[in-house]
Amino acid sequence: MHNELHNEMIVVDGLQYSNWNRKIFEQLREGGVTMVHATIVYHEQIRETLMRIAEWNRHFEMNSDLIMPVKSAADIRLAKQLGKVGIMFGAQNCSPIEDDIGMVEVMRELNLMIMQLTYNNQSLLACGCYEAEDSGVTRFGRQAIKEMNRVGMIVDMSHSGERSTLEAIEISERPIVISHANPLSFHAAKRNKSDKVLKALGESGGLLGFSLYPFHLKNGPDCTLEDFCDMVAGTADMMGIDRIGIGTDLCQEQPLSVLEWMRNGRWSKDMDYGEGSKSNADWPRPLSWFRDSRDFPNLTRGLVERGFSNEDVAKIMGLNWLNFLDEGLKPKQES
Amino acid sequence: MHNELHNEMIVVDGLQYSNWNRKIFEQLREGGVTMVHATIVYHEQIRETLMRIAEWNRHFEMNSDLIMPVKSAADIRLAKQLGKVGIMFGAQNCSPIEDDIGMVEVMRELNLMIMQLTYNNQSLLACGCYEAEDSGVTRFGRQAIKEMNRVGMIVDMSHSGERSTLEAIEISERPIVISHANPLSFHAAKRNKSDKVLKALGESGGLLGFSLYPFHLKNGPDCTLEDFCDMVAGTADMMGIDRIGIGTDLCQEQPLSVLEWMRNGRWSKDMDYGEGSKSNADWPRPLSWFRDSRDFPNLTRGLVERGFSNEDVAKIMGLNWLNFLDEGLKPKQES
Repeated sequence: MHNELHNEMIVVDGLQYSNWNRKIFEQLREGGVTMVHATIVYHEQIRETLMRIAEWNRHFEMNSDLIMPVKSAADIRLAKQLGKVGIMFGAQNCSPIEDDIGMVEVMRELNLMIMQLTYNNQSLLACGCYEAEDSGVTRFGRQAIKEMNRVGMIVDMSHSGERSTLEAIEISERPIVISHANPLSFHAAKRNKSDKVLKALGESGGLLGFSLYPFHLKNGPDCTLEDFCDMVAGTADMMGIDRIGIGTDLCQEQPLSVLEWMRNGRWSKDMDYGEGSKSNADWPRPLSWFRDSRDFPNLTRGLVERGFSNEDVAKIMGLNWLNFLDEGLKPKQES
Repeated sequence: MHNELHNEMIVVDGLQYSNWNRKIFEQLREGGVTMVHATIVYHEQIRETLMRIAEWNRHFEMNSDLIMPVKSAADIRLAKQLGKVGIMFGAQNCSPIEDDIGMVEVMRELNLMIMQLTYNNQSLLACGCYEAEDSGVTRFGRQAIKEMNRVGMIVDMSHSGERSTLEAIEISERPIVISHANPLSFHAAKRNKSDKVLKALGESGGLLGFSLYPFHLKNGPDCTLEDFCDMVAGTADMMGIDRIGIGTDLCQEQPLSVLEWMRNGRWSKDMDYGEGSKSNADWPRPLSWFRDSRDFPNLTRGLVERGFSNEDVAKIMGLNWLNFLDEGLKPKQES
C-alpha cells in the first residue's frame, strides 16, 4: 500500500552528491524521486563551477529520457508528469561567487538555485560549524543574502555555525533552508542543529531537510528506520508539519578523494577528517534501509507505520519542498 | 645638516600604493628612499595578481636605472649601494592566495614578501577592522600563518581587527608587522591600533610603520610635523626604539576609481566610503610637509628637531625595517 502512495507523490531529495552517471539516474527514477537537489560544487570557484555545469549539460544531453534540469518550481511538476527526475543545481559553499556580489545573479542565471553561505569553515559571507567561534554574517554576507533574496536563490545554512544561522534567518527577507541536517537533540554532532535554530527556522517559514548521512544519526550506520521516523515526528511537533522534508546527503559511489576534497578543499596542508577521524577516515557504512535512491519507498513506509497520515507523509516526502521552492525560486518582483 | 644625515641613511617606506610611473620613481630617488614596500594588489585574485607582477616586470625593464626588485633583504643594501630604489612586493589582502594554502609558497617564489591577512572585511584567514565583530584567526588562517612563517612571507595586520591581530601575534612563530597605522591614542580611527596591540607587537619583536595618511592622523591633513614626531616619541617609549618605522600609505596620483576599488572591491553593490563618508568620498588633502616622496627628508628633520639622536633617527627611518626583513624574509630552515 505504501508503494502505491509513494508512486503518487512528488518526492524530493533536498540534497545529494552522488557520482552522477546513468546507473544513479536510473536508481533515482526507480526510487520514485521526482526531483533531487544536486550539489554541483563544494569548494570550486567560478571557472571550476562552469566546468561542473558543462558536465551536467552533457548529462542532460546523454540522459534526456531520464533526467531534466529544474529551472523553476514548475519544472518539478513537469518532471513528475513526464516521469523524469528533475535536477536542481546547488552549491555547498559560496565559492562559486568568489569575492563578487555580481556573481550571485550570474550563477542564478545558470540555474544555481540554492547556495550555502559556508561549508564548515569561515567563508567571506558567514561562519561554518567547525570554527572555534562564530561572529555571524559578515558585511559581504549581508549584501549577498539581500542579493540572493532579490534574484530568488535559496540561502542554505546546513554547514554553518549557530550564530550565523540565526542571523541569516533574521537578515533574510525570504525563508531559508537547512537542506540536510538533523536535530542536535537526536544526535550530538557539529553539523546537527539546536532546537533554538530549528524553532527560529520553522517560525520564519523555513525548511529542514532530514539527513540520512550516518554521521548525523543516532547510532550512526546502525540507526533504525523507527528511530529516524521518531525523530521526524518529534521535529514535526516542534517546527510544524509544513516545515520539514528530506535531504538525504547521499554521496553514492564517490571515491575517498572526493570526501577529502569536501573536507580539505585547498585550505589545509594537514589532513582534516571532518566528521570522521584518523582511524575512521573513510565514508561511513550505509544504512541497511537506505543504501541508495531505490530505498526511498522505505522512508514512505516508515512514516506511514509511524502513524503519519498520507497527507502528512506527502508533505514530508516532497510537497513541503515543492511549496517552499514555488515561492523561494521566484525573482523578487514576481513573488 | 639633516639632509646629509638623510642621504647617508637607508630609508625604508613600509607601504605605498602610488600610480607607479617614471616620475614617481624619480621622486622616490630624489627623496632618498632606499626601498619601498609597494602594494601590488588589494582585492586582486591569483590571475589578476600575475598581471600586476607582469606590469612590474615591465617597470623594472623600462626603469632599470632607477629601480630594482627586492628579492631578499640583501637587495636593500645593494639598492643603497647602487643608488637605486628597491621595490618590495606586498599584498593588502589575502586574495592572491584565494582559497589555496599552496599559493603561499607560489606567491613567495614570485617575490610577494608581505601579505595582510585581511583588508577591512572578514577574509578566509581573519577578521578586518570594519566588521562589527572579530572572532579571530580562522582554521585556514592558522595554517596560512604557519606556511608564511615557513617560506618567509611577512604577516601584516594593518587592516585587521583587534582580536585577529592579537591572535596573529600569538600564533605566528616569527614577528609580524603592522606596516601602516598609528596609535589609537594619537587619533581615534578604526584603522589605528590600541596600546594593547602595540605593546604585544613590540614585545614579540614586531614592527609598527607610522602612517602619513591623513585619515590616520590627529587633525587629518592639518596634522603638524611636530605632532607627528611627538607621536613617534611616545610610541618609541611604549614599544621600544627598535620596534618602529615608517609606512607612509602614500597613494600618489591615484584616481578616485582606485580608492573605490580599495573600499568596495567586488563585494559591495552599495558604495562603501571606508574612512571617508558620502560628503567626503574623495582622497584626503595631502599634508603640507609630506606631499610626495620628495618630502622624506622632512621626516628626518622633524625627528632630529624632536631630539632623537642620529642613531635613533636612522633606526626609525629605515634600519629597523631592514633588520626586521633581514630575519623575516629568510625561509625557515635558513633563519
